Amino acid sequence: MTDRVLEIDMIARLTGHFARSPLQANRLQQSDSEIIRVPDGSPIDLAITMDSIAEEIQGGLYTDPYMIGWMAVMVNMSDLAAVGAEPFGIVISEILDNRCTPEFIETMQRGIQDACTACNSYVLGGDTNSGQQLILSGCALGRVRRGAALMRTGCQAGDVLYATGPLGTGNAYALGLLEPHLRSRITYLPQPRLQQGIALREFATACMDTSDGVLGTVDELVRLNRLGFSFTPDWERALDAAAHEVASRANIPAWLLLGGIHGEFELLFTIPPEREPDMLQAARSRGWEMLMLGTLTAAPEVLLPIEGSPHPVDTAVVRNLGHTLSHDPRGYLRALLDLHDKIVTS
Amino acid sequence: MTDRVLEIDMIARLTGHFARSPLQANRLQQSDSEIIRVPDGSPIDLAITMDSIAEEIQGGLYTDPYMIGWMAVMVNMSDLAAVGAEPFGIVISEILDNRCTPEFIETMQRGIQDACTACNSYVLGGDTNSGQQLILSGCALGRVRRGAALMRTGCQAGDVLYATGPLGTGNAYALGLLEPHLRSRITYLPQPRLQQGIALREFATACMDTSDGVLGTVDELVRLNRLGFSFTPDWERALDAAAHEVASRANIPAWLLLGGIHGEFELLFTIPPEREPDMLQAARSRGWEMLMLGTLTAAPEVLLPIEGSPHPVDTAVVRNLGHTLSHDPRGYLRALLDLHDKIVTS
Repeated sequence: MTDRVLEIDMIARLTGHFARSPLQANRLQQSDSEIIRVPDGSPIDLAITMDSIAEEIQGGLYTDPYMIGWMAVMVNMSDLAAVGAEPFGIVISEILDNRCTPEFIETMQRGIQDACTACNSYVLGGDTNSGQQLILSGCALGRVRRGAALMRTGCQAGDVLYATGPLGTGNAYALGLLEPHLRSRITYLPQPRLQQGIALREFATACMDTSDGVLGTVDELVRLNRLGFSFTPDWERALDAAAHEVASRANIPAWLLLGGIHGEFELLFTIPPEREPDMLQAARSRGWEMLMLGTLTAAPEVLLPIEGSPHPVDTAVVRNLGHTLSHDPRGYLRALLDLHDKIVTS
Repeated sequence: MTDRVLEIDMIARLTGHFARSPLQANRLQQSDSEIIRVPDGSPIDLAITMDSIAEEIQGGLYTDPYMIGWMAVMVNMSDLAAVGAEPFGIVISEILDNRCTPEFIETMQRGIQDACTACNSYVLGGDTNSGQQLILSGCALGRVRRGAALMRTGCQAGDVLYATGPLGTGNAYALGLLEPHLRSRITYLPQPRLQQGIALREFATACMDTSDGVLGTVDELVRLNRLGFSFTPDWERALDAAAHEVASRANIPAWLLLGGIHGEFELLFTIPPEREPDMLQAARSRGWEMLMLGTLTAAPEVLLPIEGSPHPVDTAVVRNLGHTLSHDPRGYLRALLDLHDKIVTS
């Protein structure tokens, strides 16, 4: 992992001028939501996060108004889930363009409300403007017991990495746009993992959602914790069955379902091996399927079994390719396939 | 005031599907920020608000990157001020277009940071996307003593309406864009009124910021409280001197500085007459100039002295005209001038 991550460089550039609040409990990039300490010994910390659905609409990845509304809520609730926060709700700013007929808007608002209902939460307020392109920006607010928020940091070599559900649906959905005959084979409507996040506060040493894909998330976790990661040989078990089938029908190596930047909004979390039995027991009692992905290592590289043997994958390179997805999805896929060839022939 | 307000209709349509949180202390439109009750007897309520700078940039009203950054913070902080909240900070989502050179972005980020410093507050986090037009969406978070948030409702006939500072700069600035030779005569960089908002919790019966101009704010206050309003004969005293001069050089009736939709982000607040001396004393001791605008009336109309005699002004009509400002500023000004002629000749 010698490469610089373009996104990290950009964030550093954009925030270079900004002073940091003394009430902010997390460092830059240290957690999926910003954690704010309420003064005067309050028993809760606040969690706040903001995310926009813009490039996904502009690039044609999201076209269905119900899905656009659903995603505007879910991408933000997922960031609350990743810190173990309980949501107060969300505020949403809508930039409406001229495709927004009353029916389109009505369906989009229904997607927003249904996603809130799925999260047992609410739209608290918002704002509307007209513009040249449709954009939904959400800001979700939640609370967590003081000092108990999950961070991306805190794991150690030997900790085991789990996912809260099957992986690869986000990238299989994106693939379906390039291969229309496969499109009907995949449904993509990420479900909230808020309850899992709250329960994981007791077990996890680190947590982050897969909003930018599994390898992007693994990259961030190992980078922040100065560790490496070794995927278990049977990691394909963690793939969503329909996603797996879409990839094989499209003749795409299965690991690209982890490598693509369009995530599935599951949580990835780390746990010390001695805590695994209790965590699995707690998950079973709630009917949750937690999927083991591998083990954190002291050696700072990411090892992934591809075609039967473990290969080091430069996850910074994988992340940086992602910047082309929204404006050139075919070129993006081609670049990932080239990377695959390079990895398996090296 | 027989007219329906288009903006209110639109908000009702957009939010018709949304369930309301049982923790939300304000009704729809009842306050400038959403007020959230923290459970378990917390001594504080949370205030959250979201506002985007989109049409102002798209329509050419805001071009200077420093001002764009400043406004993205200030429009949101102003909504916290209007409920008397103390800010935790702001999260900002940026949609960057191809005009955004590194220098442009750097200047914009400096405007953001300087506005935060002026508010004694912080950028807490954010998000960046690329898109077809530059848009900054902010979401500000604050706190207020439980149950103490200022609302737009609560005033009575006989209460006196004040402004926290001179009026008309927002519309004079917009006018300067149409009359370039006047442009240098007006500076527009709204200042925070957070300290005023906090102090006013002790005195005010209702409060709202002038983000959409003074008459739009008066319309909303009288509408929500089922009252009317009578401007004091010497209301022109409350105009910013430079704004007043710009209007008279452009041959624009002074009251259009109140009627235009591009506000100055002062607070308008109401106060029972018996509390006026204490409020004025408190303001004086802090060096604040509070400007009296008139008195709330039981009769549901807005009376404004124009050219020496009081005229009823249909503030709903004034508000509805505002929808044309961003895409046709000259047509908007013409419509306001036509309205003026209609009022003074009726």
